[in-house]
Amino acid sequence: MRVLGIDCGTERTGYGIIDSDGREHRLVTAGVIRAASDLPLEQRLLAIAHGLRDAIRAHRPEAAAVEQVFHAANPKTALKLAHVRGVALLVAAEAGLVCSSDLVGEYSPLEVKTSVVGYGRAEKSQVQMMVGSLVGLKDSVASEDASDALAVAICHATTRAVRERMEVTR
Amino acid sequence: MRVLGIDCGTERTGYGIIDSDGREHRLVTAGVIRAASDLPLEQRLLAIAHGLRDAIRAHRPEAAAVEQVFHAANPKTALKLAHVRGVALLVAAEAGLVCSSDLVGEYSPLEVKTSVVGYGRAEKSQVQMMVGSLVGLKDSVASEDASDALAVAICHATTRAVRERMEVTR
Repeated sequence: MRVLGIDCGTERTGYGIIDSDGREHRLVTAGVIRAASDLPLEQRLLAIAHGLRDAIRAHRPEAAAVEQVFHAANPKTALKLAHVRGVALLVAAEAGLVCSSDLVGEYSPLEVKTSVVGYGRAEKSQVQMMVGSLVGLKDSVASEDASDALAVAICHATTRAVRERMEVTR
Repeated sequence: MRVLGIDCGTERTGYGIIDSDGREHRLVTAGVIRAASDLPLEQRLLAIAHGLRDAIRAHRPEAAAVEQVFHAANPKTALKLAHVRGVALLVAAEAGLVCSSDLVGEYSPLEVKTSVVGYGRAEKSQVQMMVGSLVGLKDSVASEDASDALAVAICHATTRAVRERMEVTR
């Protein structure tokens, strides 16, 4: 299954697409959509939507996953992130992608890290290195945002596969 | 100027379009986009985007305004609202509408109420009655969500007009 992972940000939104059977993952593409911080929010959202649509059009993923947004740390930042996340979910839904929404199973940063590194409190650099290794790169993924997006995609692919196996064995 | 006001909600998103010179307002259309609460969030966002795009296509507003989202009351609700608001801003930007974003001037509920009723702590029913009267209806606007959206549009039209007059007289 081809899975798109999205790491939302108001200035840098990472995306990563992998082919995965839930155990082995192969990098299809990954990148970062940049939206200048001096642009009005709606123009940044427009740039993010364009970038995600381009990636979907070019690489035709079948499923999508977006990390949860928490209000804990900084409520203002969380609210802005939620704007971007709304746009990411919309673009995925428009493309007919099976999303991980609040009903289907969102992933918290802790779950994503646990799924990728096996340890929820892993350092960012550890995640980056592990993601690179998991998608078959010799090195870690260059961009942190793209790496985070790939981590979400890996988490989703793994979780889906486990869920499917559980349903088969029931 | 034809102004679209949007009142974001995860289950009911109100919209209202007025023709306004900043002093006198005329109702063009108003309505509510419903998105069933048992749908996944991304499907609700899709329904909201469709509904707003339909209204824009049919009535061609030139400007748009969306109320601010605050995290104060209920952080979880605020985060969900911010998803919807992200979609609303995106749809407005896609249509080339001049938005009220965080840079251009968002409106808080207090500002909207003050602009419409002249009193920031007005009751919902007072806003509804005043909105009806301002847009030339004999009665108050039937739906609270549509009325709130029209209130945002009136606030934006009034604020823009004042700002323009101030620039002229400088």
